[in-house]
Amino acid sequence: MEPSVKIGVVTVSDRASRGDYEDLGGPAILDYLKEVLSSRWESTYRVIADERPLIEATLRELADTEGCSLIVTTGGTGPAVRDVTPEATEAVADKIMPGFGELMRKVSLEKVPTAILSRQTAVIRGRSLIINLPGQPRAIRECLGAVMPAIPYCIDLLGGPFITTHDEFVKAFRPKK
Amino acid sequence: MEPSVKIGVVTVSDRASRGDYEDLGGPAILDYLKEVLSSRWESTYRVIADERPLIEATLRELADTEGCSLIVTTGGTGPAVRDVTPEATEAVADKIMPGFGELMRKVSLEKVPTAILSRQTAVIRGRSLIINLPGQPRAIRECLGAVMPAIPYCIDLLGGPFITTHDEFVKAFRPKK
Amino acid sequence: MEPSVKIGVVTVSDRASRGDYEDLGGPAILDYLKEVLSSRWESTYRVIADERPLIEATLRELADTEGCSLIVTTGGTGPAVRDVTPEATEAVADKIMPGFGELMRKVSLEKVPTAILSRQTAVIRGRSLIINLPGQPRAIRECLGAVMPAIPYCIDLLGGPFITTHDEFVKAFRPKK
Repeated sequence: MEPSVKIGVVTVSDRASRGDYEDLGGPAILDYLKEVLSSRWESTYRVIADERPLIEATLRELADTEGCSLIVTTGGTGPAVRDVTPEATEAVADKIMPGFGELMRKVSLEKVPTAILSRQTAVIRGRSLIINLPGQPRAIRECLGAVMPAIPYCIDLLGGPFITTHDEFVKAFRPKK
Repeated sequence: MEPSVKIGVVTVSDRASRGDYEDLGGPAILDYLKEVLSSRWESTYRVIADERPLIEATLRELADTEGCSLIVTTGGTGPAVRDVTPEATEAVADKIMPGFGELMRKVSLEKVPTAILSRQTAVIRGRSLIINLPGQPRAIRECLGAVMPAIPYCIDLLGGPFITTHDEFVKAFRPKK
Repeated sequence: MEPSVKIGVVTVSDRASRGDYEDLGGPAILDYLKEVLSSRWESTYRVIADERPLIEATLRELADTEGCSLIVTTGGTGPAVRDVTPEATEAVADKIMPGFGELMRKVSLEKVPTAILSRQTAVIRGRSLIINLPGQPRAIRECLGAVMPAIPYCIDLLGGPFITTHDEFVKAFRPKK
């Protein structure tokens, strides 16, 4: 049996981490993954404050200790002073993946002109792909849906488990060699 | 009465700063803002040489001392050796805003294939949004027009004055919470 | 007679450099240039391993010693651990040219959703424009074809030779002053 893929989900939000309101972003990501993935997976889910050292430590732990092949963050990508998720993500990166942010902003821009305010990026750390998503549940589905077809092959290239998807939702693409 | 928003306009050009020719970029930006903004605003306008320390000092002064919520530069974004506006802009940045440059190049690319040579970016410094525009008056209107719908909300997120626009020219977008 | 433009072509591939298989990327670039360029040109072609110091040294030599106005690399732009061409390219850069990577990914994305995994960039070093292309011959033509209309004017701005193209293949664009 193919090994299960470990996926980290990190909500970055001062208010959700204090319990001031219920986190909607993390569950939206988990719901999306349940719909889309057909191979086995398990998740580690964290809700943390918009503190750069804490975000960096969480990403390092999920990548290096928990062995997550994919780590998805939500929140903290805007221009406000407390929004530091992209900086924390790039700080733990071995490689920057500019194509993810470009495509996610392009897709969001078809809905709202303020999509250009999102600074979301994606990076490689070791064998983990880390992707920033915006905070709003609707935008999460749009953005994750846009990049999902490329994620299984990216994990292949990093030496991770073979991920499959329900083709009626998302068709994973693997180039023929 | 809503406080007036302060806007800095910086023409970066060796020749215009020496008086070798009249600056067209700065006035094109001011004309555009006059057409589009319906809330109160006031401008500070500078014409400076393509010298990186001078550009950085000017951006810092407009942001920190003059209290400009929005600073718009024109010129110095190409590949030539004297073009250093993006480097100066990133050097004073707290945050990089990649979506602005991506969208402005996309819009310019519909007109001229050499749009990919423009290295324009946008950043946050403190409570100021700083945006690089290209040097040509026609390109200024295209680029500033493309990103203008997102600027008032960005200034909101930075804690600045509430900016309104004439909807028939530009419809400012603010997401519903 | 207009001076000949020097063009460097660098295949970055562990396997091709060891002779494990024939390099297809470098010849695909040279074939494309033969079809498209109508002015005089000469090429320097290298096949090297995916070693960052070696890639950097090769780019520096082609730019500084060989005097190449244009240097095109193929390979090493993906997310895998041995893919380090973009990092090597940025390490020797005077200026980053984000518009090239954005446009090349956009064009490739119309063909394959995994185009977002390509981290290709372009930079200026001295009087040289350095462009990363992906490894696959088909993608090389797509990507180089997308940016080629802007290359002659970019070389003009760097003080290099006047390059002309066969208009039926690629129409070089030079803005009217």
